[in-house]
Amino acid sequence: MLSENLEKKNAMMIKKSVERIIELALTEDIGTGDITTNSVVPENTIIEASFIAKQKGIICGLDVLLEVFAYLDPSVMCKLFLKDGDKVEEGDKIGDITGPAHAILSGERVALNFLQHLSGIATQAYVFSQLVADTDVKIVDTRKTTPGLRVLEKYAVKTGGGSNHRMNLSDGILIKDNHIKAAGGIAPAVKAARKNAPQTLKIEVEAESLMQVQEALEAGADIIMLDNMNLEQMKEAVELIAGRALTEASGNMDRQDLKAVAATGVDLISIGALTHSVKAMDISLKFR
Amino acid sequence: MLSENLEKKNAMMIKKSVERIIELALTEDIGTGDITTNSVVPENTIIEASFIAKQKGIICGLDVLLEVFAYLDPSVMCKLFLKDGDKVEEGDKIGDITGPAHAILSGERVALNFLQHLSGIATQAYVFSQLVADTDVKIVDTRKTTPGLRVLEKYAVKTGGGSNHRMNLSDGILIKDNHIKAAGGIAPAVKAARKNAPQTLKIEVEAESLMQVQEALEAGADIIMLDNMNLEQMKEAVELIAGRALTEASGNMDRQDLKAVAATGVDLISIGALTHSVKAMDISLKFR
Amino acid sequence: MLSENLEKKNAMMIKKSVERIIELALTEDIGTGDITTNSVVPENTIIEASFIAKQKGIICGLDVLLEVFAYLDPSVMCKLFLKDGDKVEEGDKIGDITGPAHAILSGERVALNFLQHLSGIATQAYVFSQLVADTDVKIVDTRKTTPGLRVLEKYAVKTGGGSNHRMNLSDGILIKDNHIKAAGGIAPAVKAARKNAPQTLKIEVEAESLMQVQEALEAGADIIMLDNMNLEQMKEAVELIAGRALTEASGNMDRQDLKAVAATGVDLISIGALTHSVKAMDISLKFR
Amino acid sequence: MLSENLEKKNAMMIKKSVERIIELALTEDIGTGDITTNSVVPENTIIEASFIAKQKGIICGLDVLLEVFAYLDPSVMCKLFLKDGDKVEEGDKIGDITGPAHAILSGERVALNFLQHLSGIATQAYVFSQLVADTDVKIVDTRKTTPGLRVLEKYAVKTGGGSNHRMNLSDGILIKDNHIKAAGGIAPAVKAARKNAPQTLKIEVEAESLMQVQEALEAGADIIMLDNMNLEQMKEAVELIAGRALTEASGNMDRQDLKAVAATGVDLISIGALTHSVKAMDISLKFR
Amino acid sequence: MLSENLEKKNAMMIKKSVERIIELALTEDIGTGDITTNSVVPENTIIEASFIAKQKGIICGLDVLLEVFAYLDPSVMCKLFLKDGDKVEEGDKIGDITGPAHAILSGERVALNFLQHLSGIATQAYVFSQLVADTDVKIVDTRKTTPGLRVLEKYAVKTGGGSNHRMNLSDGILIKDNHIKAAGGIAPAVKAARKNAPQTLKIEVEAESLMQVQEALEAGADIIMLDNMNLEQMKEAVELIAGRALTEASGNMDRQDLKAVAATGVDLISIGALTHSVKAMDISLKFR
Amino acid sequence: MLSENLEKKNAMMIKKSVERIIELALTEDIGTGDITTNSVVPENTIIEASFIAKQKGIICGLDVLLEVFAYLDPSVMCKLFLKDGDKVEEGDKIGDITGPAHAILSGERVALNFLQHLSGIATQAYVFSQLVADTDVKIVDTRKTTPGLRVLEKYAVKTGGGSNHRMNLSDGILIKDNHIKAAGGIAPAVKAARKNAPQTLKIEVEAESLMQVQEALEAGADIIMLDNMNLEQMKEAVELIAGRALTEASGNMDRQDLKAVAATGVDLISIGALTHSVKAMDISLKFR
Repeated sequence: MLSENLEKKNAMMIKKSVERIIELALTEDIGTGDITTNSVVPENTIIEASFIAKQKGIICGLDVLLEVFAYLDPSVMCKLFLKDGDKVEEGDKIGDITGPAHAILSGERVALNFLQHLSGIATQAYVFSQLVADTDVKIVDTRKTTPGLRVLEKYAVKTGGGSNHRMNLSDGILIKDNHIKAAGGIAPAVKAARKNAPQTLKIEVEAESLMQVQEALEAGADIIMLDNMNLEQMKEAVELIAGRALTEASGNMDRQDLKAVAATGVDLISIGALTHSVKAMDISLKFR
Repeated sequence: MLSENLEKKNAMMIKKSVERIIELALTEDIGTGDITTNSVVPENTIIEASFIAKQKGIICGLDVLLEVFAYLDPSVMCKLFLKDGDKVEEGDKIGDITGPAHAILSGERVALNFLQHLSGIATQAYVFSQLVADTDVKIVDTRKTTPGLRVLEKYAVKTGGGSNHRMNLSDGILIKDNHIKAAGGIAPAVKAARKNAPQTLKIEVEAESLMQVQEALEAGADIIMLDNMNLEQMKEAVELIAGRALTEASGNMDRQDLKAVAATGVDLISIGALTHSVKAMDISLKFR
Repeated sequence: MLSENLEKKNAMMIKKSVERIIELALTEDIGTGDITTNSVVPENTIIEASFIAKQKGIICGLDVLLEVFAYLDPSVMCKLFLKDGDKVEEGDKIGDITGPAHAILSGERVALNFLQHLSGIATQAYVFSQLVADTDVKIVDTRKTTPGLRVLEKYAVKTGGGSNHRMNLSDGILIKDNHIKAAGGIAPAVKAARKNAPQTLKIEVEAESLMQVQEALEAGADIIMLDNMNLEQMKEAVELIAGRALTEASGNMDRQDLKAVAATGVDLISIGALTHSVKAMDISLKFR
Repeated sequence: MLSENLEKKNAMMIKKSVERIIELALTEDIGTGDITTNSVVPENTIIEASFIAKQKGIICGLDVLLEVFAYLDPSVMCKLFLKDGDKVEEGDKIGDITGPAHAILSGERVALNFLQHLSGIATQAYVFSQLVADTDVKIVDTRKTTPGLRVLEKYAVKTGGGSNHRMNLSDGILIKDNHIKAAGGIAPAVKAARKNAPQTLKIEVEAESLMQVQEALEAGADIIMLDNMNLEQMKEAVELIAGRALTEASGNMDRQDLKAVAATGVDLISIGALTHSVKAMDISLKFR
Repeated sequence: MLSENLEKKNAMMIKKSVERIIELALTEDIGTGDITTNSVVPENTIIEASFIAKQKGIICGLDVLLEVFAYLDPSVMCKLFLKDGDKVEEGDKIGDITGPAHAILSGERVALNFLQHLSGIATQAYVFSQLVADTDVKIVDTRKTTPGLRVLEKYAVKTGGGSNHRMNLSDGILIKDNHIKAAGGIAPAVKAARKNAPQTLKIEVEAESLMQVQEALEAGADIIMLDNMNLEQMKEAVELIAGRALTEASGNMDRQDLKAVAATGVDLISIGALTHSVKAMDISLKFR
Repeated sequence: MLSENLEKKNAMMIKKSVERIIELALTEDIGTGDITTNSVVPENTIIEASFIAKQKGIICGLDVLLEVFAYLDPSVMCKLFLKDGDKVEEGDKIGDITGPAHAILSGERVALNFLQHLSGIATQAYVFSQLVADTDVKIVDTRKTTPGLRVLEKYAVKTGGGSNHRMNLSDGILIKDNHIKAAGGIAPAVKAARKNAPQTLKIEVEAESLMQVQEALEAGADIIMLDNMNLEQMKEAVELIAGRALTEASGNMDRQDLKAVAATGVDLISIGALTHSVKAMDISLKFR
């Protein structure tokens, strides 16, 4: 399975992030109490239900789902038939849930909101990755994520088969147009980064033309972003660089022919739409 | 303008919500510091830039944008030419920003992430609302929102011309299938709600058939949700109810002919896709 | 028992609220450590004690008590003989507690502070409710609660046999004098509320005269508050309304003859003193 | 004025405490927004109102009131005619408030809840203190405070003319019955406290009999609490102690003749009811 | 063992403090994830390792170490051969640890940072205490602690055999030079403290000359700090005081001959360097 | 001046970190109030004082000092004569402070605790850096920092003239002994890192022998840590690597002849003692 090696490796800190955002999500959804359930459902009612995929895709967010119900009531029991990264078809049963009606009914919406959102991202990452599956190109995400969900959304991208670009502004150097202007050119910008930033980080430079690619190369950039270039330009850039730096294709890549982009020889293709325009995967909780 | 009366009325508590989510978003994006800007850009650099719409739509989230930069550096100056709810065409200038390069470059991504997400929702709410603009029907949202962004997303729906359903589980009673089963029928469920819940809340009942509509009506429901009914069924239900309760059409409404749904005479149409499947509006920050 | 159906239904979110306020209460009471116990009591001392009612009343807050000691030391064992809502007479044993002296001595005061305060409220709610027990009138609380304790105090009111009015400003519409003035009259105020607020909320209007009652009725108010009216006025108002809206008697009701108020035919009597002027119930922890 | 020297000295940290509890109180009262005001009151409405005492007493909590409105909207202007500790008669105007209707209407209840609660405590502290005003006896509070409000309630006691006992378990040593048992007697308990606790704290011992008073005295206690003794016993204890330790009368002192207690010669009288059974002072906000 | 009676008595609140600072320390060290371990180490790897002392000293912080790993993964098992306060020689094994490689490798640094820092303090406290072990003098700490670690560092001082001075500004009265000037002299300062502060606190006065010692004595100070006096002055001061107040030697005491200071007859010697200039004890985690 | 270009670049997020740790430090130091100052110092007292260096060194932490007093009382005025990174001699005046005695006396200790600790680190970083000032070698810090102070301590290292290694586990890859064992060798470990970690991070490998250096080189490591090697070994390693990777000398470097280490040709020397064994710089606040 795609995410086999990945899902648990990240589990530790993801769990901590999940705790906070789950608490936030439950607080905003439950408010001062689920007045309907509290008023109508007898207190000791036990119910059973199943999570069912209503469309095909890649499942992601099952650990979050478990945490949501564990947060509300540790006596809720979930039996999952799948794990993050698994493919589902319409009608597939994802897991069963049994326990106090109060906890399950009050947590249902939040659990589904997470699961549908993250599965939507994983599914899209899978689709893009499959397009270039027979090449060495990696599909990577960006910082265009939904506020508050950065860690989870990047996890979903990886679960779907994509790779992660830097997590935030402190774990990667990316010298863009404005940094270049402010520093007085690509060469001085790269020089300043090498002097002032930790040696542990590579230096990536955004280039909008072959001339800039040439400058970045001479300045010793480790990675060169080919920004908003057409296929022809990208191909020339890759030839010019000739393996002396990694190359990243960028700029509305969700609207491009990814196979063709991959054919230019770039190493990475970054796609903002992976996380900024998410279509929730249709999943429902069916009660018995 | 659409949101003229609404935008500031909600401002007070939205500002408090915004503070928390902005802090969360900036923290996850900046990490321990914007290493590129800190290493490359001279400390006293002042820059100027403009927020430009790259496609047509409804702008939403300008207050959030102001807060993002105010949080990072109060000396950043923003001059907005529009307000939340305004329509923009491709190429329209939304506002200018001037100030320390460090704050503007470090805050740019988070500010845009909010603005593009909320404007995407407002634009979609506008599109749906316009379809039924010549009727009395209200387009309303659901609880299918992105975790952590409930208040802002519901604000965006209203900004675009939609209306809000209940904000969370404590400010509205909605008796669904499982509540009905657990209570032993629609009648006992409504009776329990009337006895145990505050009198200040109306009682809404989800009905999947005309028989259930009839039961809900007899039990004294204030609102009846017509769940996953076709146009014919909705029309019959509306006739049966005859004004004795409000009616809400529900169930994948984003895939329906909303004009036809409105023609059945329902009062409300609720659409989960308004917030669970958001396409970010394309907006960029152009530096001078 | 009075609260039989209620106590656990609200348990889920009350537990979360309790965690926060318990942590706050323990922090403010223990400071940097219980210096007396730490200095004087040998570390492995085990003690046994019993919670004893020193006066008659209704017990409320036992779950909070359990959480206080669980927070300090999970090895503290409590055996409760009663549950929230039970009646006690002077001298009744409420429960036994056994465990490490350090946790029990350090938590004793905070546990009692909660238990005595909430039992005081439940007892008063019981007294008021009994006065009108042979009528259909409900005794309801207000927003005049102790800062930070809203959820717990409203729970205590319900435990004692009262009912809850709205929990806060977002789950109920109550148009008061100032809203009416600002909106230009009762009719436009009600119209604006119907247009701008979610349909899930009823509209309550405060009326200080029969003329205002008439206006509220014509505007379509769902509930009419009869504010500071005498018995005669209330009776006339109820007759005028004739079941077309719910009626709520309000205004220093703790000083009124509640039986006489109930006899006017109102549906609800709201009493601020239930929560703003609480007399702690006398309860002590007796060590063996 | 009573509190003249005290009110500002504590202001610094009280302000920090106030920020947290005000935020908590506003959050629980406003929820996701003041739906009535937001729906009904035009956004730019400015209103004026006055805080009026509806009964005589001692005002306390004015700084909290200012913070509540400042938190909601810094443009709200308050003009106070009194300061904490001032006496009021029924009908006295406490202060004027002018500003945006939205902030004032949404904050009114929380501001009053604080002001009425703290003024109720200050008033009661004043009443008790006046009873012994011609003696050297100090009326002191206890740890029987409302959870979450410790600092504010102790401030109110001082504002009304009382004195503070220890703030929490870490800034005072009070060896009670159970500590004595666990340590094997008064002498070893005092010895352990002297050995293990910081030298900066005095050692107080609770005595229920003259024999225990004698033991405490011999052990070198700095303060001796005379617990639940009658007037005769207290007098004998004071004579026995003869100034070698401070004396504190304790145990349902709100039901005693405080003048008679003072006449026994004790130095301190501690009264739990000062904070555990508070009657809110009647104060209202009158709009013009 | 030195700390035998002390270590668990403080455990309760230390555990709460530890939770917060551990979370802070892990968050700042792990960031968004241990990218090396996550990328390189297979997910189910189990490892074993031992904590080894690399120099002689007093161990302190073992409970913190346990909490660090428990926080990351409850399945990590630690077997400790020592307890806080135990002496170690170079090469001694402190404890074994077994469990998931991911949790152990990610938590190793933070656990060691705590353990080495606290053991460094305990060791230094032990060294100073041993110098005066055959006298009645107590070595006490100050408020010159590392920001955020007050409770833990004071615990380490006690673990090493020192005693604690006041924990913070609210649990001890220490009238210094500036207080004296502001109050108009030692006598009025002590008088004001006696009037305004709780009776439960002793009054300490800082004296820089014999004249000030005399004044403090006459004012009734409970403790007199002999600040920056030489041995001769201290001796005279002790004789002057003649047991009527406790005496505390203060001022760069880490550079003094502590035996000589003790010989002057002072009761306490306070040393800021105990916590403001800490040399980490060398401890390592050896993997098998 | 050393830190001229650095101090403000990091200011933005450091300020946010500072807010939290300052709040924590003030809370733990002030507790429920500065009882001495509150009891003794008249409320409107204004005082003036100067921060004086009592030994030579590099000043660091002045922004933190400003924040401490701003947090307590915005009316406190500070006039600084130096900036972070400046050299001081014994007796130099660092800055003046004027304002309310209450805020200055209550904040003095916390402000000094920060300033002395950070200046101690900056001074040590300066001393080490000067030793190799005539070479290209960089002195870098480690993750052996005081819990909770990571960001500030790394800032102090940079202020003193050192450089920063990775900030935490997520912004640098460092493959150590245990990672190598778990992965089955250096080659597979580096390969896994290249596959699974973001491309933006360089890969550093810890080598304890020349054979491991060779393996790391062949595996394509970007940086090779020469761990606990003697001068001869380091020299051989540098020759072997021949510029194909950066080299970092590590292992008790504070006890080495840094000039000799630099002469081996390594690029970086990392020193844990910079932050794990800090000697506070002596600074005092002198009142006038």
